[in-house]
Amino acid sequence: MVKQAKNAISPTRDEDYPMWYQEVVKASEMAEKSPVRGCMVIKPWGYALWENIVSTMDGMFKDTGIKNAYFPLFIPLSYLEKEAEHVEGFAKECAVVTHHRLEAGEDGKLVPAGKLTEPLIVRPTSETIIGESMSRWTSSYRDLPILLNQWANVVRWEMRTRIFLRTSEFLWQEGHTAHATEAEARERTMMMLDVYTRFVEEYLAMPVVRGRKTASERFPGAVDTVCIEAMMQDKKALQAGTSHFLGQNFARSSDIRFQNADKKEEFAWTTSWGTSTRMIGGMIMTHADDDGVIMPPRVAPAHVVLLPIARKEEDQRKVMEYTRSLADALAVRTYHGSRIRVEIDDRDTGGARAWDWIKKGIPLRAEIGPRDMENDCVFLGRRDEAPGKKVSLPREDFINTIDTILDDIQNNLFNRALAFKRENTIEIDDTEEFKALFTAPDENSIHGGFVMAHWCGAAECEAKIKEDLSVTIRCIPFDSKTEQGRCICCGNASGRRVLFAKAY
Amino acid sequence: MVKQAKNAISPTRDEDYPMWYQEVVKASEMAEKSPVRGCMVIKPWGYALWENIVSTMDGMFKDTGIKNAYFPLFIPLSYLEKEAEHVEGFAKECAVVTHHRLEAGEDGKLVPAGKLTEPLIVRPTSETIIGESMSRWTSSYRDLPILLNQWANVVRWEMRTRIFLRTSEFLWQEGHTAHATEAEARERTMMMLDVYTRFVEEYLAMPVVRGRKTASERFPGAVDTVCIEAMMQDKKALQAGTSHFLGQNFARSSDIRFQNADKKEEFAWTTSWGTSTRMIGGMIMTHADDDGVIMPPRVAPAHVVLLPIARKEEDQRKVMEYTRSLADALAVRTYHGSRIRVEIDDRDTGGARAWDWIKKGIPLRAEIGPRDMENDCVFLGRRDEAPGKKVSLPREDFINTIDTILDDIQNNLFNRALAFKRENTIEIDDTEEFKALFTAPDENSIHGGFVMAHWCGAAECEAKIKEDLSVTIRCIPFDSKTEQGRCICCGNASGRRVLFAKAY
Repeated sequence: MVKQAKNAISPTRDEDYPMWYQEVVKASEMAEKSPVRGCMVIKPWGYALWENIVSTMDGMFKDTGIKNAYFPLFIPLSYLEKEAEHVEGFAKECAVVTHHRLEAGEDGKLVPAGKLTEPLIVRPTSETIIGESMSRWTSSYRDLPILLNQWANVVRWEMRTRIFLRTSEFLWQEGHTAHATEAEARERTMMMLDVYTRFVEEYLAMPVVRGRKTASERFPGAVDTVCIEAMMQDKKALQAGTSHFLGQNFARSSDIRFQNADKKEEFAWTTSWGTSTRMIGGMIMTHADDDGVIMPPRVAPAHVVLLPIARKEEDQRKVMEYTRSLADALAVRTYHGSRIRVEIDDRDTGGARAWDWIKKGIPLRAEIGPRDMENDCVFLGRRDEAPGKKVSLPREDFINTIDTILDDIQNNLFNRALAFKRENTIEIDDTEEFKALFTAPDENSIHGGFVMAHWCGAAECEAKIKEDLSVTIRCIPFDSKTEQGRCICCGNASGRRVLFAKAY
Repeated sequence: MVKQAKNAISPTRDEDYPMWYQEVVKASEMAEKSPVRGCMVIKPWGYALWENIVSTMDGMFKDTGIKNAYFPLFIPLSYLEKEAEHVEGFAKECAVVTHHRLEAGEDGKLVPAGKLTEPLIVRPTSETIIGESMSRWTSSYRDLPILLNQWANVVRWEMRTRIFLRTSEFLWQEGHTAHATEAEARERTMMMLDVYTRFVEEYLAMPVVRGRKTASERFPGAVDTVCIEAMMQDKKALQAGTSHFLGQNFARSSDIRFQNADKKEEFAWTTSWGTSTRMIGGMIMTHADDDGVIMPPRVAPAHVVLLPIARKEEDQRKVMEYTRSLADALAVRTYHGSRIRVEIDDRDTGGARAWDWIKKGIPLRAEIGPRDMENDCVFLGRRDEAPGKKVSLPREDFINTIDTILDDIQNNLFNRALAFKRENTIEIDDTEEFKALFTAPDENSIHGGFVMAHWCGAAECEAKIKEDLSVTIRCIPFDSKTEQGRCICCGNASGRRVLFAKAY
């Protein structure tokens, strides 16, 4: 491997965090901006990660009884008018289809024709149209629960976009369930948050804080919104998943009624919950370093790349054969229920080849040269260690312990992120200290963190802090201890600490 | 099971084929029309089938080296102008996004606002935008081949829609590959047709005719289009997949150039190939009968439903326990590489319950009553046999042979369809006979078939037959024998027979 004086990514995290992120994504070849404003092209290496995320989460959903379905891309405009609260929320900035044909204009150029009597909105969420179906499908308590999920693309016209984190089109899943009782719907709300927690912590290796949103941060129309919040390396929070208990509000606006066992008509109790390609941005910002992306092994598109090295022509065939046979031996082994995913890179690009894989974040790189072959060894580098640190390992040991090595990387990534979150989560009781922490000494400084501070419960205090410092209450953590204190904003009495942070 | 004098589906295939199809889909709960014109809601039973189709085909694609990626939903209008041939083809009827915001108008109603400087088209295919990426990603022969596939939703504004067969929005995959040599691109074109053939025949149990499209039926811009054509039960053809060799045409319009090993610049050689949710319509029309859908076991959302029957309350717990333990024993068995997918239906809906599953097309129904339990037996019905024909089978035999039974159903469905296709494929040399076969005695009659007839090769003859009889040349079958004859239209000399049929 070529020695590099500098890191592979420039600028570094310390130099310019937002620019570092862009460069990391670019260098990884996971995705790129497209010619269509605000939309991204997800390249094979990024899409394979998404496929692993989808298949794992999808299996978890199905284990709880969820079934997938597919609803139309378009929403009639009148559906959005029904839900005034939505229009006030995210639905204002959306792609509006007004015509259904193209015709050649006078200058030969194509112009929109065939004006629609009612404009169609490209779904910013399928909530309203799923509600319409649920309304038609529900007449008796026997029809409940309805447990649906959809994997789809959605569009929200964003003015300022950042790849994976905020794009006009993104991929997501939205779950919608309808129940005969409040208790069952509340249980489902928490059940799905548990699934999200498990997935994000055990697969993406991102430790999270679980909690409840305040009234002002709640999803429009929700009675209760619970969430998981993760800490990025710039100490900002990223919401990695939300689950909403909608009470009977959504059923009322979508007319989801059923006859209960006593033949009385009631509105159903519903939930909704979602995660998106945004999680990928969160995963990158949790683990990536100044050499590029680091993929947690359980979701990595490939676990290991084999790099045959043979300068002399007479060695090439033998080294390649040895490499192929090693790949075959690895590919029948498993890690965490999946076959080991092996890549062979036999390109003739010198040291740049290993760096390409470091930037892509593959967990393991195994170099195989004539001397390794003679000793029946591989020369192994781990992505969670410095690029130069490599160890020679007997071939058989490598094959037999690859699952243990991968698990070690997975755990190491989680523990590193957990330590970082712990180091940067503090209790603050002094208002000036609170302000100072969230005030940047200069434009590019990484500052802030997760602050557990007292809050009196008043929306005014919450709004003032947001206004003054761009800091929000990320959640009221479930494990927040009951404790007497003074509101960090107004000094009034408070019974518990909440989680404050700047957020993506 | 309740005895029914009539079939479950009305009208029958003979009475009104198009209406029968609609009723079959409805009764199966696979999909339904949505409130959005021309778009469908794919319900869980239909979507689970699609998921099985996707995961199987996707594995086959990846085995040939294909990688998935994701491209934007929107296409800038100017991209379509670049490809005049496309605009002439299917792209004219499409959803046009002209605004990116909704605002409250004077009457408080929402109106489109934020007019786009350039309208965006909801992708009717991603061809042009994938071409743009390929152009940026290709500079040297070392960058080739590029082997991409995308699973996505696409929109083509259709005036007359039929669920699964022709909808404004549908789900599909489109593959696009770029190669350094003509030979490699031609080989890839055939390789993907082979994948389609294998999937459609071995999984959907639909026998197909493989062949080449005539110049007038070719994909716009293609040098060569190869396809697979299946026969529906009304004897019409349905194109179940196409693969295109695009020569250098597409590379020229998308500017996909590379430097070859001799440092000379060349245009790449490209292919594209696609299949869609339309296949589901084809699968239904191939196998369904007057009692509803019949799912080929290899793609069926569930293989077997267990129906506990216990009229007396004291039996219910015991029967249910027996049923659950049977389900557990079945679920660890496999058929064709997948775990046996088991449903338990313990609803208290009498005979309607079994009929629901017949209409859904589940391959096996196993009834379990107190007497079956005593004898340690199940009472088994196969969907490829008459609803009333059921056999008692010892529990252990059932568990141990379920894979063989499912395979027998899979083969039986294929062989039935193959026999039907053979019976209805004839050679015709007489023009009047040809006309008579394709002329309906009355509106609802099922007539026609696959006709192997001579064609001189003139586009005029092909056009005349299409004009007069709505019959097209589906393909020039690869196995069409070289043989001297007279064109069925003009009587001129012809060297081989081609496949004529009415088509979906």
